[in-house]
Amino acid sequence: MISVVLIGSGNVAQHLIAALLQSDDVELVQVFSRKKEEVAHLLPNKKITADFSSLKQADVYVIAVSDNAIAEVSSKIPFENSLVVHTSGSMSLEILDHKNRRGVFYPLQTFTKNKAVNFKEIPICLESENETDFLILERLAKSISTISYPISSEQRKALHVAAVFVCNFVNHLYEIGSSICVENQLPFSILQPLIQETANKIRTLTPAEAQTGPAKRNDTQSINAHLAFLSDDNQKEIYKLITKSIIDHGKKL
Amino acid sequence: MISVVLIGSGNVAQHLIAALLQSDDVELVQVFSRKKEEVAHLLPNKKITADFSSLKQADVYVIAVSDNAIAEVSSKIPFENSLVVHTSGSMSLEILDHKNRRGVFYPLQTFTKNKAVNFKEIPICLESENETDFLILERLAKSISTISYPISSEQRKALHVAAVFVCNFVNHLYEIGSSICVENQLPFSILQPLIQETANKIRTLTPAEAQTGPAKRNDTQSINAHLAFLSDDNQKEIYKLITKSIIDHGKKL
Repeated sequence: MISVVLIGSGNVAQHLIAALLQSDDVELVQVFSRKKEEVAHLLPNKKITADFSSLKQADVYVIAVSDNAIAEVSSKIPFENSLVVHTSGSMSLEILDHKNRRGVFYPLQTFTKNKAVNFKEIPICLESENETDFLILERLAKSISTISYPISSEQRKALHVAAVFVCNFVNHLYEIGSSICVENQLPFSILQPLIQETANKIRTLTPAEAQTGPAKRNDTQSINAHLAFLSDDNQKEIYKLITKSIIDHGKKL
Repeated sequence: MISVVLIGSGNVAQHLIAALLQSDDVELVQVFSRKKEEVAHLLPNKKITADFSSLKQADVYVIAVSDNAIAEVSSKIPFENSLVVHTSGSMSLEILDHKNRRGVFYPLQTFTKNKAVNFKEIPICLESENETDFLILERLAKSISTISYPISSEQRKALHVAAVFVCNFVNHLYEIGSSICVENQLPFSILQPLIQETANKIRTLTPAEAQTGPAKRNDTQSINAHLAFLSDDNQKEIYKLITKSIIDHGKKL
């Protein structure tokens, strides 16, 4: 049984709390939240604190707060030589106060409030300063997910950038697709099977193999027709830039 | 029973042939392919022709060829007043030779050779010049899919542009994510759960509700760190433009 204190109350914190509570191998000793009401629906009041001085002892302290608060929070933990990890994709291990043993426990997923996720399928990226701590983090990861990887701070930075492209930016393209539909009295749902298949395809094909469309075919006629159709300058710029990128990429292959 | 002659041998043609052959309500009378060997694995040789003058009679002629060949192919059909449709997302109904009754039968999906698709879930966008023909096309659509919509040529043009954003451009962002992984000794598979969840989320949330990430939070520190990390100018430009678009879009909400 691993005892855990979790610090935070945002999206990642809430999803982690829910997952940890369901694990048989974890005891969630306490949650720290400046606003206790934000996690009150998840666990009993006596397990929630808003006061660092009343933080309990645990095998692992998981800091799931916004990036710019991690350093300060880690310095406020009133213990030394404990294992303290953060859950950020973009921050180095080094940002944590060195009075404790430091690590990273980064679940690579997009979390939205009120949208349940299956933690079992979320890759957890782990980093620690020594092998013993890595084994503890690996056990903690396995208690809530089937997938974990050792990932260095440098690799995690790359991974986070890649994640921005395949998640945040992809979602923005969905948003553009949706607004084009709405403007033309089309239900966005008509695009759903295409969106799902586009994501499905790359389970078995590489993205290069899966690429289709006017840019891939260098079909200038369609490309120009699409540019003429688009009235939003911003959409037009994105269309031009990604089309150029696909064409240039095709030339390199 | 609807009798169909299909003209073409590319991706869309091959997937359509496979789907039509499986339907109980369709008789695939004949396939026209300039290179007969390209469809030889799908149906008996006697049902394949490379000669327009030997084209058989049918209720519907489905032209599934590249956009710039549709007009010419439609003029070569040696019949008049037959129902002739094309399967293109970007071409108007008008492009078809007016000696026949014209229509559009556009399956909105991304087709790749050697990657099976479940046609039942593919929305088929239908257009015709009169109500009777629409009913024939609707019946044909229902014989292979559970979803069909009446879509005008103008709407179809919008839909095709939207599809380029949510499919072709999205896949290119997967490609960029993949190359960042490869460059940093990370398996692309680590991004798979994130990619699937990003596509899944918008089944129940709007893309605006589903948006997460540094740009959504206007997190300048992460954005600048990501730009400093990216060494490929092209990737950097795409990062800047979509980040700006997400930030601008957030301001409008």
